[in-house]
Amino acid sequence: MAQTEDRVAGASHRAAPVHADLVEVSLETALLALADPIRRTLVRTLAGVPDWERACGSFDVPVTKATLSRHFQVLRESGLLEQRDAGAKRFNRLRREEFDARFPGLLALVMAE
Amino acid sequence: MAQTEDRVAGASHRAAPVHADLVEVSLETALLALADPIRRTLVRTLAGVPDWERACGSFDVPVTKATLSRHFQVLRESGLLEQRDAGAKRFNRLRREEFDARFPGLLALVMAE
Repeated sequence: MAQTEDRVAGASHRAAPVHADLVEVSLETALLALADPIRRTLVRTLAGVPDWERACGSFDVPVTKATLSRHFQVLRESGLLEQRDAGAKRFNRLRREEFDARFPGLLALVMAE
Repeated sequence: MAQTEDRVAGASHRAAPVHADLVEVSLETALLALADPIRRTLVRTLAGVPDWERACGSFDVPVTKATLSRHFQVLRESGLLEQRDAGAKRFNRLRREEFDARFPGLLALVMAE
């Protein structure tokens, strides 16, 4: 899978988030990513705010930090999520247009749910 | 879940297949049904033939009879499949228009895969 890595000045020592190339994301990966209710909640939350507004700790979902981190990873791997580190925080953006272009109609079903 | 049962003259002693009311099928159920590659193969096969042409034993998929039966059950429960018994055989129809009306665009993604 093609990966991009960006180091932001002031980022913490964690590895920079790795993002999917949407051309290489399979329909199965996309369906499985969106089959989880917590991930659909994260996606809908991001769809309702400006890009990069939400840090990872700001989501109101009933899961542990480790589980949430895993959900973010699945969303990155399915091409739904872009993340950037800034200082100690990691900010999020829904890759809506790119995902829509690859899987037309799929995000609209999640938004309408 | 609303269910319909039809007994066909000459049907075997098995219980008649139970079908989903699509209004009551959740997005999650639909996504999970289509996240499986064998089920997507069954759906694409049915999309390419006339309604009721295919009996359950006629699908070329590398799974046991019991596993295949379970896949058909999941497809029925997600509103994708209608089945009718005729003698010892069980015939199949993809509920394409009904499923498209409930989840616009989702089957098109499977067909394009």
